[in-house]
Amino acid sequence: MLSASLIVDPAFRVGAVDPRIYGSFVEHLGRCVYTGIYEPGHPTADADGFRQDVLELVRGLDVPIVRYPGGNFVSAYNWEDGVGPAADRPTRIDLAWRSIETNQVGVDEFQRWAGRAGAETMMAVNLGTRGIDEARAFVEYCNHPSGTAWSDRRRANGASDPYGIKVWCLGNEMDGPWQIGHKTAFDYGRLAAEAGKAMRLVDPDIELVVSGSSHSRMPTFGTWERVTLTEAYDVVDHISMHGYYQQHGDDRDSFLASAVDTDRFIDAVVATADHVRAVGRHSKRLTIAFDEWNVWYQSRFAGQENLPIAEAPALIEDVYSVTDAVVVGNLLISLLRHADRVKIGCQAQLVNVIAPIMTAKGGPAWRQSIYHPYALTSRHGRGTVLRPEAKSPSHETAAHGEVPLLDAVAVLQDDDRSVALFAVNRDQHEPMTLDVDVRSLPHLVTGEHLAIADDDPDAVNDRDHPDRVAPRRLAAPKVDGGRLQLVLPPLSWNLIRLTTRD
Amino acid sequence: MLSASLIVDPAFRVGAVDPRIYGSFVEHLGRCVYTGIYEPGHPTADADGFRQDVLELVRGLDVPIVRYPGGNFVSAYNWEDGVGPAADRPTRIDLAWRSIETNQVGVDEFQRWAGRAGAETMMAVNLGTRGIDEARAFVEYCNHPSGTAWSDRRRANGASDPYGIKVWCLGNEMDGPWQIGHKTAFDYGRLAAEAGKAMRLVDPDIELVVSGSSHSRMPTFGTWERVTLTEAYDVVDHISMHGYYQQHGDDRDSFLASAVDTDRFIDAVVATADHVRAVGRHSKRLTIAFDEWNVWYQSRFAGQENLPIAEAPALIEDVYSVTDAVVVGNLLISLLRHADRVKIGCQAQLVNVIAPIMTAKGGPAWRQSIYHPYALTSRHGRGTVLRPEAKSPSHETAAHGEVPLLDAVAVLQDDDRSVALFAVNRDQHEPMTLDVDVRSLPHLVTGEHLAIADDDPDAVNDRDHPDRVAPRRLAAPKVDGGRLQLVLPPLSWNLIRLTTRD
Amino acid sequence: MLSASLIVDPAFRVGAVDPRIYGSFVEHLGRCVYTGIYEPGHPTADADGFRQDVLELVRGLDVPIVRYPGGNFVSAYNWEDGVGPAADRPTRIDLAWRSIETNQVGVDEFQRWAGRAGAETMMAVNLGTRGIDEARAFVEYCNHPSGTAWSDRRRANGASDPYGIKVWCLGNEMDGPWQIGHKTAFDYGRLAAEAGKAMRLVDPDIELVVSGSSHSRMPTFGTWERVTLTEAYDVVDHISMHGYYQQHGDDRDSFLASAVDTDRFIDAVVATADHVRAVGRHSKRLTIAFDEWNVWYQSRFAGQENLPIAEAPALIEDVYSVTDAVVVGNLLISLLRHADRVKIGCQAQLVNVIAPIMTAKGGPAWRQSIYHPYALTSRHGRGTVLRPEAKSPSHETAAHGEVPLLDAVAVLQDDDRSVALFAVNRDQHEPMTLDVDVRSLPHLVTGEHLAIADDDPDAVNDRDHPDRVAPRRLAAPKVDGGRLQLVLPPLSWNLIRLTTRD
Repeated sequence: MLSASLIVDPAFRVGAVDPRIYGSFVEHLGRCVYTGIYEPGHPTADADGFRQDVLELVRGLDVPIVRYPGGNFVSAYNWEDGVGPAADRPTRIDLAWRSIETNQVGVDEFQRWAGRAGAETMMAVNLGTRGIDEARAFVEYCNHPSGTAWSDRRRANGASDPYGIKVWCLGNEMDGPWQIGHKTAFDYGRLAAEAGKAMRLVDPDIELVVSGSSHSRMPTFGTWERVTLTEAYDVVDHISMHGYYQQHGDDRDSFLASAVDTDRFIDAVVATADHVRAVGRHSKRLTIAFDEWNVWYQSRFAGQENLPIAEAPALIEDVYSVTDAVVVGNLLISLLRHADRVKIGCQAQLVNVIAPIMTAKGGPAWRQSIYHPYALTSRHGRGTVLRPEAKSPSHETAAHGEVPLLDAVAVLQDDDRSVALFAVNRDQHEPMTLDVDVRSLPHLVTGEHLAIADDDPDAVNDRDHPDRVAPRRLAAPKVDGGRLQLVLPPLSWNLIRLTTRD
Repeated sequence: MLSASLIVDPAFRVGAVDPRIYGSFVEHLGRCVYTGIYEPGHPTADADGFRQDVLELVRGLDVPIVRYPGGNFVSAYNWEDGVGPAADRPTRIDLAWRSIETNQVGVDEFQRWAGRAGAETMMAVNLGTRGIDEARAFVEYCNHPSGTAWSDRRRANGASDPYGIKVWCLGNEMDGPWQIGHKTAFDYGRLAAEAGKAMRLVDPDIELVVSGSSHSRMPTFGTWERVTLTEAYDVVDHISMHGYYQQHGDDRDSFLASAVDTDRFIDAVVATADHVRAVGRHSKRLTIAFDEWNVWYQSRFAGQENLPIAEAPALIEDVYSVTDAVVVGNLLISLLRHADRVKIGCQAQLVNVIAPIMTAKGGPAWRQSIYHPYALTSRHGRGTVLRPEAKSPSHETAAHGEVPLLDAVAVLQDDDRSVALFAVNRDQHEPMTLDVDVRSLPHLVTGEHLAIADDDPDAVNDRDHPDRVAPRRLAAPKVDGGRLQLVLPPLSWNLIRLTTRD
Repeated sequence: MLSASLIVDPAFRVGAVDPRIYGSFVEHLGRCVYTGIYEPGHPTADADGFRQDVLELVRGLDVPIVRYPGGNFVSAYNWEDGVGPAADRPTRIDLAWRSIETNQVGVDEFQRWAGRAGAETMMAVNLGTRGIDEARAFVEYCNHPSGTAWSDRRRANGASDPYGIKVWCLGNEMDGPWQIGHKTAFDYGRLAAEAGKAMRLVDPDIELVVSGSSHSRMPTFGTWERVTLTEAYDVVDHISMHGYYQQHGDDRDSFLASAVDTDRFIDAVVATADHVRAVGRHSKRLTIAFDEWNVWYQSRFAGQENLPIAEAPALIEDVYSVTDAVVVGNLLISLLRHADRVKIGCQAQLVNVIAPIMTAKGGPAWRQSIYHPYALTSRHGRGTVLRPEAKSPSHETAAHGEVPLLDAVAVLQDDDRSVALFAVNRDQHEPMTLDVDVRSLPHLVTGEHLAIADDDPDAVNDRDHPDRVAPRRLAAPKVDGGRLQLVLPPLSWNLIRLTTRD
């Protein structure tokens, strides 16, 4: 039996949770949009063609913001193709995923869908094949009230009120050689600065996300951020990060410690942004939009250049296990731990494509294993993150060196009377006793303990067994003398909610 | 009483005055166009909506060339928006001044207006958000006779003859971070070279102006010119300069010596252009288009990013004093002194926006104080500039170091029989006797002396007192024994015309 | 009498001839298209306006591939102008040649023409004034079967089957300051990489040609290739070279040795490409598209900036002599000698413009002198190039130093039973005996000897004397004891065909 301990004290705070860290991502990729959120003719489709079964599951995730429409897709996308009478919209070849894009869903449809999902949109402009003029026109179409050609086009297309889209991404993964219109850091930084400047002149209230590194192992990582931010610092608010993790071979220990890479990656981007701030004598601080993250078995994907051109093909539909769910839960702990600098997070993606929600065309929708830690953290991880002081045994991993077996973070809820503790036991075989010191929160007396853990860490959900993997309720913890003792199962993600006696 | 002297000798010449140094500037900014030169429904409006009262005042300035349509405006302007049936033209957000641009005035209207004003147009293309193709199409629309798609569009829009627009600006203030589509000197130089090359292939008779520094204190000044010209030298004819001056705090002495900065700025740009000429083994010499200059109280302008979006708002409507008029007159002396290299000058702007002419919407138009030195220099400062040898007392200024109290230049009229002498007394309190040696022009015997000077150097004109500040006729000077003695009032601008007895 | 010898041995091979080295080039320039291949109303014009007399001569050249539509023309050309109903197409000013382009011939017409000529098209995209999006749309228009907006436009325009255009040029001579949209090597390399990447995603089967140096004396030669390829190596298949030759003054010896420059130029480009391959750890090898080459008396061309704008003007209609034909034949020998790396060659151009075929508007078409070595090499120079071991006398030339007087190459035909030997005697005055060792090909017993040679090396063909210069049949060579003795006339190009006795 492993043994660890933790102090939870509201005097030591990291910062307020920006609920937008529980964002998601809908890209025109595979079946995320078509037969995912949108499937006219489906038994549950509403008048606009949106699947109600999917919307129901989305609402269960309590998603405050959804990034759209890409992703790699956006870098050759002309947004005007997606507005106006649906029958007049051109059919295009999407270069990013070599798919047929019918443009039946565009910005107007997506805004309607997002409204029903209770989410705001995080919109991306194309800085791959396009420039300043198209970006400013897009902001004008979406956010200007009326009286100009573009805003009146939106009104003619049925939206009399401006959308007020607040967060705009200046392109996507522009550091990646795979990106259509990939640029050097300097050229991208210049374009981001000029496009962002023009967009902000149309609507000064927007927040802008500059494109950072596609992952922490990019050869240009660090330099990309420094050079790009040197050009664009003044005009942007957030810098993006993307991170995907998977198990390589049978090295599950390294995979379970993926959040260690996330932590280091965030710390390095923060350091770089603060360096540029110092050199440029800027007063504002940049924050981070971790706007693509998840477990993704990329080694199973053959690469887009080998795809046949097809309409809404089933691409990158990874099926997630218990282990994957534990890692996803741990990655959320990492975002929470950096609540002072990470203001937006988007799990990629929402439906079908490396997604918590799966659908069958014409058939049902169901939850993958990773749905559960996402939903529970999104619901209970709001308030103020406390700086947890933990003592934990550790072990050596091939990918990350020595890592602690316990990873945990505590969130003081907005009522100041309850605490949510998120904890992962990374050991595959041993349970862990966790001793929690809550003496500085004397009113806490009772709680609830939910866990993702399973005798079969490879168990998955599928159409026929949609609830094979789900959170389990463990023995309710009791506070005794300001102390709480829990047992975390091996290879588990845990939510412990502590509240006062009513 | 201060005392200074001057020799005027036709043997010592600077060069012929290019009348285009008396140009002006009409930008789509504030009320310069709308309710400025153009106000359908105004009591004096002609059938095209042009105010005749404004046109009358413009004619009084004898303006040979007017820069159009920007300025910062041009860097996000699509010229096609302004042609064709007025009712079909799109309403846009002008990003430079965050204004609603109805596009009711475009190139065709402006050409009609310029024709009535007796001026040619100095046209600017958008190199902020656009590139080569749109620039060449614009030249084709304006200057190609017929038989091509663009020239036939112009004819369909009512202009069967080509406009023959001679002078074209390759963008505007591309060195400024505030500019939409701001570029590095190298990137701009490349674009200017390629756009200019294409424009010249459409019409080999055009003159091209490459964008130089926005003012002499730009951190990139000098380097910008060197790098840009290294790319574009062969394709361009002029390099632009912009300069605005104002009184800071109560330091009027420095303000009165603003032309010293203009002189140094011109000399530095000439040196840089000649350096690039030498390195590149070019044979032609570049000349200067000082295409924005004036007194402008920029410290009173809050910055465009803070403007609400509005249609034809009253922006930057500075009211000018006697002192401002003296400085404006002195800046014209500086341009004349560099007649060998400065071939174009544009006071910015013509109407309402830091302008010699003001209007009330639906009401009258009137002359500001600065109108007068501009009009008098434009009328009488044509011919050949003589190199005046002056002796003058000097004083120390905070901004410019030691400066002479007298600044003067003489222009030998084209008939070779009369001379116009322009002179400023920069001392705020003391009159100055000026002894002029004209022995080498023995036929000159009589003259006229007009001055801008006032007991109240802060006096201004306004709607109700449109002629409070105007030139005063002083005692007519007489030539005696090849010598002439004048008295220049304190803080004054003076025009002394010497002619033969008829 | 000069004396040289040669060993022809099938064991020593350079490589297989790619028939595409016998390509040609049709640019929208002068009368190449209009009154060249296309002249509605001409007595021989078919229903589509294509001159049958010209087509007949083209077929005589056995041209496998024709580059289109430029050349310099392409760098400001918008391909969409050339599709759709002919009456609706816009008339443009072609900037490259200051000509009126009526767009009556566009991609659809050219594909029909190429089909009738038995040639495939080598298409160029505009990377001067345009970018990624227009390039990918063009590939989609041409090569995508159907079901997208662009491919359905092609079908609506009459071509239900995709064209399957295989070879695409990424712009033209982008290293040349004369080029519209000329770029630095780095900027061009980035654009070529990104445009090429997008084009390949539309159709992965295309081959891409990156723009190399415009000639071997460009100041950027070598550096241009290195920098450009460093950016674009992975995405391209071929790198282009252009080379034109003429006699300067009376230095005919240097002119006759022009192929020496071609050899050195090819070797240098191969070395540069292989250098970038090594540094970048690339596995594929680039090959060469020598996609503009010919004799061109450029010194007689005044430069495009001095041309009046006219429709289908008679531009660059060089008339070729016997000497020019010998040089053209020698340049083809140079391409053959590099068969391992040169996969495409395009003689520039096909009709009227520095062309083997001339036409009179409304009148006949005829062959220039250079037609003959081109036609004979194209017909007989297919198979496998053998590495000829030659011994030749040499002489000193002003332009190339010491050069051999004999240049020759042997091609083993695909039936492995016959050999074509191409040989030039560069001496202006002396005949040359050539001793050929064919002992390793014992079945060869007889042959045919055709030569371009003339008492008057300046003789030309014209409308009235269309066959003044033509191949002459010399004494048929006989193989005797594995040896063959030929006499090459002074200043001659020779084809010796050796076959078995049937």
